[in-house]
Amino acid sequence: MPLNNKQPIRVAAIDAIDGDSRIERNDYVVVEEPLAIRVAVRDTEESTSLAITMRTPGHDEELAAGLVFTEGLVHHRSDIREIEARPHLNEVIVRLDGSVKVDDERLRRNLYMSSSCGVCGKATIEALFSTGQERLTTDATFSRELIHKLPEATRAAQSTFEHTGALHAATLFDCSGRLRIIREDVGRHNALDKIIGAEFLAGRSMESSVVMLSGRVGFELVQKCVVARVPVMAAVGAPSSLAIETARRFNVTLLGFVRDNRFNIYTGSERIV
Amino acid sequence: MPLNNKQPIRVAAIDAIDGDSRIERNDYVVVEEPLAIRVAVRDTEESTSLAITMRTPGHDEELAAGLVFTEGLVHHRSDIREIEARPHLNEVIVRLDGSVKVDDERLRRNLYMSSSCGVCGKATIEALFSTGQERLTTDATFSRELIHKLPEATRAAQSTFEHTGALHAATLFDCSGRLRIIREDVGRHNALDKIIGAEFLAGRSMESSVVMLSGRVGFELVQKCVVARVPVMAAVGAPSSLAIETARRFNVTLLGFVRDNRFNIYTGSERIV
Repeated sequence: MPLNNKQPIRVAAIDAIDGDSRIERNDYVVVEEPLAIRVAVRDTEESTSLAITMRTPGHDEELAAGLVFTEGLVHHRSDIREIEARPHLNEVIVRLDGSVKVDDERLRRNLYMSSSCGVCGKATIEALFSTGQERLTTDATFSRELIHKLPEATRAAQSTFEHTGALHAATLFDCSGRLRIIREDVGRHNALDKIIGAEFLAGRSMESSVVMLSGRVGFELVQKCVVARVPVMAAVGAPSSLAIETARRFNVTLLGFVRDNRFNIYTGSERIV
Repeated sequence: MPLNNKQPIRVAAIDAIDGDSRIERNDYVVVEEPLAIRVAVRDTEESTSLAITMRTPGHDEELAAGLVFTEGLVHHRSDIREIEARPHLNEVIVRLDGSVKVDDERLRRNLYMSSSCGVCGKATIEALFSTGQERLTTDATFSRELIHKLPEATRAAQSTFEHTGALHAATLFDCSGRLRIIREDVGRHNALDKIIGAEFLAGRSMESSVVMLSGRVGFELVQKCVVARVPVMAAVGAPSSLAIETARRFNVTLLGFVRDNRFNIYTGSERIV
């Protein structure tokens, strides 16, 4: 069982216990491997480590693009000159355009949360504003029926990955309910970064779309959707207090417990018609 | 709805959608707030930021102790002189004993994964060895019946937190199945750090215990149990490939899908009798 293969799932030998019985059999498990995301800035070929994330191999370029975008290092498609993925090294290098100004301190600390503005929920939200993020103003609307259909549409699109039971899925739908992209990953942040990165690289706006998430919603996932200008977030699980507060401040519609023909609206109910 | 209260849950106003009906009502949500974990080293009163984590308020001292222990900054109870929690500031300061040598580079980067040993699953595991961690050699055993009972015992011990649906639980049982401690948090790493930190601060060995986790198991959770010398990890969800590989290398027994009188053994089956 090589550690460094680049498949998203692989086979593991297990003992399956059922009450008093024990059966040896094979099962699928999701592959988790570190990925070093490096950034190369102007006038130098040397790259700097931005982050190391534990991810499921696949779509490493999208993951890197989504991360540098949602962490605020780049703002436009043209800010990225090239992305070089080296899957065999678990490394991806994002080469920025010469015009991009990178804050060295930012590159070193690389998280909104590490900003020096103080540490509380309110300060965390204000830090997002201070980086230039604005309230979402799109008047796109989504029907209740469309929201009710998202879980089944997601399930239908999931790959064999789901057999492992260990993957988070992030799925992007447009306002007519058409599925645009789905990504699965051992980390929920990665799954979201991959779909945001894919749309960013393609130069497509996400302002009329809804993101469906397989799990729970914390602050960081809302932050990513604010930066990517996604107006509606729907999740199978529950949101946290700070996720709700952030969504409210930035006018993102936040839906939780989206399953079995039900859901809860936490913020932005005017977009659900 | 003040952002900075220190309750683990709070009330949010929601629109509950069920098919075509819409009802306005209140619901509980889990509180998520940042916590700055700072470390003060010898001969100076000034503290350095080790990490900022998004956590559910409560047991901040345990969380900080668990993190500095599982990240390898301290090894013995006496290495910590004092822990000062400032919940109103979302800050906790760990004051180390003067005898503790802190690697500045370590403090700056503060993650095993950031070590310069290279980036692949194998290197990640080797990095754990290189920090002095050893294979677990305890011959403690646990009966199948004990494992089958863990989910129900955990549920019975959970607080009202569970109503939010957004909390991860980590629970510690001894080898006779007695529950020693349970902690719930919006972050699964935090819940585990809190129980490990509590045992570390109390000076209690975890070598004859089993940890029950409410979710899935990735590399970092196994790493924490290796450092804390927990021989058996049981989880409601699935483990990742790297979690399995790490557990095998360090001789940790890893159980997944522990529910409904069933479970899978991924590694260390000799401890289950």
